Amino acid sequence: MASPITPPRGMRDFLPADKARREHALGVIRRTFSAHGFDEIETPVVEDVARLHSGLGGDNEKLAFSVLKRGLDADDLTAAIDSGDLLSLTDLGLRFDLTVPLARFYATHRAELPPVFRAIQIAPVWRAERPQKGRYRQFVQCDIDIIGEASQLAEVELITATAAALDALGLKDCTIRINDRRILNGLLEYCGFAASRWPQVLISIDKLDKIGAAGVVGELSADGADSAAVLGGILEQLEPHLADGGVALTVEAITSILPDGIDTDAIAALEGLAHALDTLPSGVTLRFDPTLVRGMGYYTGTIFEIAHPGSGSSVGGGGRYDGMIGRFLGSEVPAAGFSIGFERVVDLVELPTGGAEDAIVLVYDAAVPLDRLLAVKSELIASGRRVRLEKRTKNLKALLDRAGASGFGSFAFVTAETGDAASLDVKAIG
Amino acid sequence: MASPITPPRGMRDFLPADKARREHALGVIRRTFSAHGFDEIETPVVEDVARLHSGLGGDNEKLAFSVLKRGLDADDLTAAIDSGDLLSLTDLGLRFDLTVPLARFYATHRAELPPVFRAIQIAPVWRAERPQKGRYRQFVQCDIDIIGEASQLAEVELITATAAALDALGLKDCTIRINDRRILNGLLEYCGFAASRWPQVLISIDKLDKIGAAGVVGELSADGADSAAVLGGILEQLEPHLADGGVALTVEAITSILPDGIDTDAIAALEGLAHALDTLPSGVTLRFDPTLVRGMGYYTGTIFEIAHPGSGSSVGGGGRYDGMIGRFLGSEVPAAGFSIGFERVVDLVELPTGGAEDAIVLVYDAAVPLDRLLAVKSELIASGRRVRLEKRTKNLKALLDRAGASGFGSFAFVTAETGDAASLDVKAIG
Repeated sequence: MASPITPPRGMRDFLPADKARREHALGVIRRTFSAHGFDEIETPVVEDVARLHSGLGGDNEKLAFSVLKRGLDADDLTAAIDSGDLLSLTDLGLRFDLTVPLARFYATHRAELPPVFRAIQIAPVWRAERPQKGRYRQFVQCDIDIIGEASQLAEVELITATAAALDALGLKDCTIRINDRRILNGLLEYCGFAASRWPQVLISIDKLDKIGAAGVVGELSADGADSAAVLGGILEQLEPHLADGGVALTVEAITSILPDGIDTDAIAALEGLAHALDTLPSGVTLRFDPTLVRGMGYYTGTIFEIAHPGSGSSVGGGGRYDGMIGRFLGSEVPAAGFSIGFERVVDLVELPTGGAEDAIVLVYDAAVPLDRLLAVKSELIASGRRVRLEKRTKNLKALLDRAGASGFGSFAFVTAETGDAASLDVKAIG
Repeated sequence: MASPITPPRGMRDFLPADKARREHALGVIRRTFSAHGFDEIETPVVEDVARLHSGLGGDNEKLAFSVLKRGLDADDLTAAIDSGDLLSLTDLGLRFDLTVPLARFYATHRAELPPVFRAIQIAPVWRAERPQKGRYRQFVQCDIDIIGEASQLAEVELITATAAALDALGLKDCTIRINDRRILNGLLEYCGFAASRWPQVLISIDKLDKIGAAGVVGELSADGADSAAVLGGILEQLEPHLADGGVALTVEAITSILPDGIDTDAIAALEGLAHALDTLPSGVTLRFDPTLVRGMGYYTGTIFEIAHPGSGSSVGGGGRYDGMIGRFLGSEVPAAGFSIGFERVVDLVELPTGGAEDAIVLVYDAAVPLDRLLAVKSELIASGRRVRLEKRTKNLKALLDRAGASGFGSFAFVTAETGDAASLDVKAIG
């Protein structure tokens, strides 16, 4: 085969050590979310293409992998050419996030779910992104969502559970930046931007850390130069506060850095949120950042993003998105969610030490009858050991080094003279 | 939206109770395989379409879902019409099994893997089958494979680990039917079938339980009527033995039901296999079934299938396939594998009781300050409880019934007067 034998572009294999690290981290996250009262669900990896492309996924819709319909013929292709509609060749698409599938799941199963439904979704998603460092075409997201809870309890439980999961993974000293879309909207109104321009303005503000206040003004001054200048002035004044992730979540601190008259209810709610988040793990810092945008258009209230010193970019984010979950039902359902960016987190996780002493390599020679060898192995497994058989080779050291690197802490020889497991001479590796 | 809001055709959502059952069963399987010395790996869900369609997947290749190339235009479609090659529109396909990806994985990573590599793959696969009862378009397989072990140790470890996993899931009293492709080939040679016809003859024999000996003869007598008649006679004589899953795995029993002169080495090896499998969980029965075929063309030696009285069809199968894993490398690598049909197994699994008493519902009223409520919740989680908050409703019984059905065994009221968790009056649900 001429082409190099690799996984598909932008996707990865996981060898045993990587896979073990990932499964360990996923287990910790799953158990933490479960302890906090969330329930795990699962949906198929594909959804009907019409639902994936219904506008809920924003720019991610353009990155969806589409599945070719089965049994197509030349007439179907000709029809697609004539209509200019290539989506007519596909009926399914790989999900690009876990939120659109959740909305579909909720529409399908609403009658079977409790009035307040706390969902865990831990699963891969796919995006046909240009492959680059740290960005993959298949990656895992760990989402929790609370559907049906209009009060701030939803945000509090989401933030608490996510901070606890990261803490349990050993990611201490996280900073959670918090904002509210209503405050952002108030700010844009104050600057005098027409509501129709808000999405575009938010996209520019979202790039503040890359292009600076002057860059944002530059992007926006093509039209609405006055508004852009007002915004630029505010952003410049904010800059010293943002270095630290923002200001404290108190009405006093928040109003001190915002123009007067911005949504006071939303500001008071943020102070209440901080108060209710008193039980966060020690080391977690809460900050109000009025320039936090979060990309997706569907957010309607509180938004948050979580950073850890070990990662250059955020390790998770979320917010309230009351309008979206009910979209397939045609009704408004309150909802909020928090997503851990698993691929950024997993490399920071320290695997627990220990366990290696319970993992034993049985080095056997060719003279051992198979049934005897298997009997010793079974006996050790029954006593709670992990057991691997390795045929004795000339280079015993290489064999044991490899076993040690795979997490095996001890070894023993099995020969034709070996009786039961109790008669083994077990030695430590290394 | 006019269309009903459902998962894609032939695919399923899993609600919390189903998902919990599945994760429990997968955890048991994963831990058992790991204790038996296997290492888990993971590959992307898609593979390059040329590899998926390289002939290793047999009929399953026709059932693969294909992914449309990104950025296609009318010219690409026209070219596909002109060439008649619709696969030119796709570059990736969803995997239809875990064996083709394993062969690709091994070709990519051989240098990083030990000489004998024991792989676990627990993952979904996709087939565009006509949906019918018990067959899904997305389903999970649990595969173990041993690559690089030419001796019977591979078969012994695979069968032992799989039987142990099913035993740990509570599936006692399994029957494992065993055959050897070399014995099958010997039988076909004895009947006088030309080697070129063997694949077709095996497909017919594979249907024996559905169409009977007469049906097999009918399918095959179009040409080679003499050979078909000989085979028919043998199958008829075998029928009384097959009702019981076959005969014992001894040379004596095997030769007593086969024509003389069939591959004696392979027959002796089966007796050796049974001897080495002495440590199987009690209740597991081994049987020799000379009509066992296993569908895939790549098997070269021992083949096996595992049945449980709770399932109408086999709950797993596998065998030796020495020619295949090295195919992408252009070299021959010994390999054998065993796959558990997870979807057939999971419904038979009994969930462990217990744990419910540690899961508590806090029923709160609106007067409780959020920070107090969260503090009590955090305290209980820190003590090892699973905790869910439920706002008190008029129908308390319905609330508690629902919580009980979700695995919560106790509840307590939280009011404005509640102090810490120790002051809660915890009651059992139901």
